[in-house]
Amino acid sequence: MTPAIPTVTEPALRQFITDSFIACGLPATDAEIAGSLMAQADLMGQDGHGVFRLPQYVRRIRDGGLNVTPNIKTVEDRTATALIDGDNGLGHLVMHHATQMAISKAQTTGIGWVGARHSNHAGPASLYAMMPLKRDMIGVYVAVGSANHLPPWGGSEMLLSTNPIAVAVPAGRHPPIILDMATTVAAYGKVKTAAQRGEMMPEGWMIDRQGKPLTDPKRAAEGFLLPIGGPKGYGLSLIFGILAGTLNGAAFGRNVVDFNADSKTTTNTGHFIIALDIKAFTDPDTFKAGIDIVWEEMKSSPRLPGYDEIRLPGERLARVSQERSNGGIPLAPPLRQALDELAVQLDIKPL
Amino acid sequence: MTPAIPTVTEPALRQFITDSFIACGLPATDAEIAGSLMAQADLMGQDGHGVFRLPQYVRRIRDGGLNVTPNIKTVEDRTATALIDGDNGLGHLVMHHATQMAISKAQTTGIGWVGARHSNHAGPASLYAMMPLKRDMIGVYVAVGSANHLPPWGGSEMLLSTNPIAVAVPAGRHPPIILDMATTVAAYGKVKTAAQRGEMMPEGWMIDRQGKPLTDPKRAAEGFLLPIGGPKGYGLSLIFGILAGTLNGAAFGRNVVDFNADSKTTTNTGHFIIALDIKAFTDPDTFKAGIDIVWEEMKSSPRLPGYDEIRLPGERLARVSQERSNGGIPLAPPLRQALDELAVQLDIKPL
Repeated sequence: MTPAIPTVTEPALRQFITDSFIACGLPATDAEIAGSLMAQADLMGQDGHGVFRLPQYVRRIRDGGLNVTPNIKTVEDRTATALIDGDNGLGHLVMHHATQMAISKAQTTGIGWVGARHSNHAGPASLYAMMPLKRDMIGVYVAVGSANHLPPWGGSEMLLSTNPIAVAVPAGRHPPIILDMATTVAAYGKVKTAAQRGEMMPEGWMIDRQGKPLTDPKRAAEGFLLPIGGPKGYGLSLIFGILAGTLNGAAFGRNVVDFNADSKTTTNTGHFIIALDIKAFTDPDTFKAGIDIVWEEMKSSPRLPGYDEIRLPGERLARVSQERSNGGIPLAPPLRQALDELAVQLDIKPL
Repeated sequence: MTPAIPTVTEPALRQFITDSFIACGLPATDAEIAGSLMAQADLMGQDGHGVFRLPQYVRRIRDGGLNVTPNIKTVEDRTATALIDGDNGLGHLVMHHATQMAISKAQTTGIGWVGARHSNHAGPASLYAMMPLKRDMIGVYVAVGSANHLPPWGGSEMLLSTNPIAVAVPAGRHPPIILDMATTVAAYGKVKTAAQRGEMMPEGWMIDRQGKPLTDPKRAAEGFLLPIGGPKGYGLSLIFGILAGTLNGAAFGRNVVDFNADSKTTTNTGHFIIALDIKAFTDPDTFKAGIDIVWEEMKSSPRLPGYDEIRLPGERLARVSQERSNGGIPLAPPLRQALDELAVQLDIKPL
């Protein structure tokens, strides 16, 4: 049995992230928004997209690659759509702003679609897709990933990212259904995790430059991620990149900056959020009762040999959120150490 | 070398389909819209979703499963959204109506999202996604498939369909980029085609009720289609089914009618269309120039060994449309014979 990993509470983690950003020069209200969203990512179990990213964000701020006092501007504005310019601010702030706008538009028109450019990495996609839920709205979020990891189908130049999509719909008795997925078989974070653990990857995650299966995650730099469904996942990544990137005047294709390798160059990250008002289609209670039926129908249906349950997207997120609200958020020792070093560096109270 | 398959011209095919629907009791203008859309499907190379379906539609009309004089009603209407009820009319008519509404809304608000219920099979998804293109708009279409072909991930009851998505974006010098994909590795039509040709299927298309690979398409009824990316494709199919079905009050899950096996029961098919006005984000010419760059970047990038080209989604559609505009639409002899029999049955001029 592995020893229990020490935990922190969500409020403590939120405070630590907020303090870090304030020490970096962000206004307090912005630091609080970012702290709250990043801690929520950890609470939900999105360990690769929460506080794990904080040292990287701080490095980017220190290297001048991220604007701590952005002036987020509306570039284009229609009744139900908008395009905003994030002024190279933290992605969380840009997308928090965009999502508020989308919700506000949806309240009057039924739907709001807000695109953003000159933004940055914003954490897990589900964070933003979930925001409209409390207004009885459905959320859809799509982003251009912050580093290219795959070529077009049949190619060998990495022109595409994992370009994720998240969709959140509310249920009644059950947790919301929340799909949050990369358009690749494995997210790049899973490759990194396998490398850290010294594990091999299954065939189907990556290929090398000869098109042969690549299963050693330490050789990841020699190959590419594989899209889901081959050419279909390539098509999804391409289309999401166009809608979240090209349409917004944001980076897509060869001009995407690898934010892991480069902390100085402006990324011009693009994303978009849709808020869709359920009341524009039906009574929200009727809809939620319908989602409960969907949930139960899937969950109770007969299983294939070897499967002990059928999962709904969002089920794990709800369970982990509950567990971590009660028992705290586990922080692996290397991460904890990195955050302690960050506290010293920023001269703030450690976790 | 296989002998050339006899062809028909697009106008001749359109007239034949129109005549068929008029003989079935559709008003002439409705028959013309359906004839035009179905012939366009064949022109674009979507052979499984054009005139190939006509005998099935006629059988459904004859059996009382489709309303030839529907009163398509607006159930809910907001500035940028609507829900329409297709009154069990032909899906092509319902979605043609929905798409016109979505385009009209997008002209004033930036976006239109129109959902439909009590509709029917509407042919290939790309037909509707492409309609907004000529207004410098992007089109997104999603449907609940007309028969369930896969279980939730880990399950063995077919509760989900291939629930396709199509997205169309205009380019400048190049054809539009048009993604049109099922959320399964193979569409069910490809399984049927393999069975007709006496070919085996590759592993990965289907599994049997024990979870083992199923490669003999003649045994297709004993198994299920596999979703792209395993649980990810299951999640996409589920979410698309909720957005196109549950949200609209249309069938999804256990209440989906298999329209291949049953031509009497109302299907209550659901779909939705989004028209997104490019002008609400940027100058359309700027956008199209950006898409040309994306096209050329992908197309000219270095290839993996064994691949002689990199394709863009929509490239084949554009090439086939051009070839068939010039040289006619090939109709395989068994299909031609079925259409000749239909002409006798409906007492109309044969092709």
